[in-house]
Amino acid sequence: MSLIVQKYGGSSVADAESIKRVAKRIVDTRSAGNDVVVAVSAMGDTTDDLIDLAHSVAERPDAREFDMLVTTGERVSMALLAMAIKDLGFDARSYTGSQAGMITDSKHGDARIVDVTPVRVREALDQGAIAIVAGFQGFNRDSRDITTLGRGGSDTTAVALAAALDADVCEIYSDVDGVFTADPRIVPLAHKLDHITSEEMLELAANGAKVLHIRAVEYARRQGVTLHVRSSFSDLPGTIVYNPERAEEFEVEEPMIAGVAHDLTQAKITVSGVPDVPGKAAQIFAIVAEQGANIDMIVQNVSGRGTGITDISFTLPKAGAEKVKRALEEAKDEIGYEQLTFTEGIGKISLVGSGMRTNIGVSARLFEALRDAGINIDMISTSEIRISITVRAELVTEATRVIHSAFGLDADHEAVVYAGTGR
Amino acid sequence: MSLIVQKYGGSSVADAESIKRVAKRIVDTRSAGNDVVVAVSAMGDTTDDLIDLAHSVAERPDAREFDMLVTTGERVSMALLAMAIKDLGFDARSYTGSQAGMITDSKHGDARIVDVTPVRVREALDQGAIAIVAGFQGFNRDSRDITTLGRGGSDTTAVALAAALDADVCEIYSDVDGVFTADPRIVPLAHKLDHITSEEMLELAANGAKVLHIRAVEYARRQGVTLHVRSSFSDLPGTIVYNPERAEEFEVEEPMIAGVAHDLTQAKITVSGVPDVPGKAAQIFAIVAEQGANIDMIVQNVSGRGTGITDISFTLPKAGAEKVKRALEEAKDEIGYEQLTFTEGIGKISLVGSGMRTNIGVSARLFEALRDAGINIDMISTSEIRISITVRAELVTEATRVIHSAFGLDADHEAVVYAGTGR
Repeated sequence: MSLIVQKYGGSSVADAESIKRVAKRIVDTRSAGNDVVVAVSAMGDTTDDLIDLAHSVAERPDAREFDMLVTTGERVSMALLAMAIKDLGFDARSYTGSQAGMITDSKHGDARIVDVTPVRVREALDQGAIAIVAGFQGFNRDSRDITTLGRGGSDTTAVALAAALDADVCEIYSDVDGVFTADPRIVPLAHKLDHITSEEMLELAANGAKVLHIRAVEYARRQGVTLHVRSSFSDLPGTIVYNPERAEEFEVEEPMIAGVAHDLTQAKITVSGVPDVPGKAAQIFAIVAEQGANIDMIVQNVSGRGTGITDISFTLPKAGAEKVKRALEEAKDEIGYEQLTFTEGIGKISLVGSGMRTNIGVSARLFEALRDAGINIDMISTSEIRISITVRAELVTEATRVIHSAFGLDADHEAVVYAGTGR
Repeated sequence: MSLIVQKYGGSSVADAESIKRVAKRIVDTRSAGNDVVVAVSAMGDTTDDLIDLAHSVAERPDAREFDMLVTTGERVSMALLAMAIKDLGFDARSYTGSQAGMITDSKHGDARIVDVTPVRVREALDQGAIAIVAGFQGFNRDSRDITTLGRGGSDTTAVALAAALDADVCEIYSDVDGVFTADPRIVPLAHKLDHITSEEMLELAANGAKVLHIRAVEYARRQGVTLHVRSSFSDLPGTIVYNPERAEEFEVEEPMIAGVAHDLTQAKITVSGVPDVPGKAAQIFAIVAEQGANIDMIVQNVSGRGTGITDISFTLPKAGAEKVKRALEEAKDEIGYEQLTFTEGIGKISLVGSGMRTNIGVSARLFEALRDAGINIDMISTSEIRISITVRAELVTEATRVIHSAFGLDADHEAVVYAGTGR
């Protein structure tokens, strides 16, 4: 008998019919002899609706009250799910983040989990019941207030529970079939992966892939939790995201490249003609950090215009990029650069694969493929198992397809594309 | 400086605009130098919508989960209200029933308050903040589950807080101007009372008046809390509901009759030809009690058909009356009655007034007025300050108006009737 944690996203519980369908799936899992714990998101667009409601009553909604408000979404879906399961004749109980022992720090809107003590959940399982836990929320012991976990919160809830309860697997359900080699909405020949290492999944998630949130992937990796990314609309197996401990089960068949992620949420700033003296980069990025921006790629090249000056380019999320631009413009004399260029018209593409460690020529193949397609590469940035490039935004789709083909990832047939959001 | 508890019903917080308007009213009360605690209902029809949602996922929604579900309504409105107040520059904090120390028994859906320990609310007031409390909900210490307080729950929350915090007044806001001498929707010449004794309010509420729930009135009476029933849509004073301790402030002007309530929710059962021997009434009402019915009026008359037999009539809520009828029909031989008559076509009208204690001729005046109007009285039932009669349902409106006029309650002009629900 296994202990299975299942997470159902908003699209999987969007209405009464979906809730009943999910209840049936949960009951089938239980009937097969497993202990089942479920983390559930708010129904459909509820969270967005509640956020809109908050902004319609206040210009700057208070953070504590905001968390109290938005967490009602998961309370509604967890209670309805428990009701539907009980109506099918199985014992089920719902638990808020607080009742499930999801203890966090006090940072409303983006709380960190500091401890997970799912005592009541464990008791429910011991009594043969199914436990339904509200995703996306926790409890701060000091203030005794409800908190929300920030983006990817419900995935994180599921993984945290799986880790604390020593679950055999954590199934993440959404409206997509699993992890694909690229976003099937821009690469029709993308195919679903049967399995992927957690390290590769981390790189894909950190670089644009939306099916799993990076935070949940990190947590699973750190805690040794195996993830199974599946669709709640079918019974097909999805994608297993596994950790190094389980490598032997999968590695024999592991392809060199896992997939290609793309990211259109970045903007690029180039500070050119910076005096090439120690401390200038530090000065620039201190100003950037003050604005709270999360820098992604950084590239520094000695300027073609001569020795003694350099150009520094970096990418950052579009949201908040204007602030950074203005701050750097105000500091022009202080830094002493010649010119600042800002563009939102860029896209980042990342090729990810564990095989890069041991295979040479990957970058060569990548650059040749893009050269042959006449696509110009702007910035390049790498990690042990990832190569990222930036191109003009309007070329991202074509470039992604070119790279996908060049590395033999194309399926025999086009992927069936749902209007799915991957949530 | 006073401590004022305010309760706002669903129609007062139906949307973002209403919430902002209520926030302004609360802030004005605080600005006048008062400590303010607010109990708030769910927005508009939210509770009904959530109940529908529960029934769309399960045939018999689990009681514990049902309470978890419906209490989200008040959490949403309290958080939004706190946000709106903070946006106006005043400190405000929302508290769930649990956080506000509203401790109840374990009866989901109709929990009794067993203790009120509003420690965090008191702390908020001491720090100069406005406390917003979710109405209609509490917390059971044994199961550590959320509970709902049943009908009139938000009024009860407000009164319970007022009692526990020793508030100077408890203002109950809805979409009606106050307590009227009769329901203005059927008696256009009804007028708003400036004040009424809690004893009279109890009788009106228990006999059909909807502006305040009987439970809240009882609690206020028991705990010595003064109520002020007002409209959230105007600044006019409403109706003060006061207890005996404050009689001297009001009594000089107290009219003999407070008002006329009507009730169309009752059905009537007559068991005729019952053997007039000890124990028969007990036998009949034991069967009725087994069905969980709440008997209202009981009238027993020796039958006109001779000695040794009697007729017993009683009224009960229409909901559930069918069950009682069937149970009595099945027990016909056991009880030994001749015939059972069942009708839903009745209406009860109650004349209420403290003055009845000391004034004779009230019943005579009542019966004469109805006789002159050609309206037949069926059952009669009285208490110290109330006379109730039943008539055919279709005559309730006319009869109520006749009685209202006969006792000098008619206003000079017609009441402005809102499409209000009194909630």
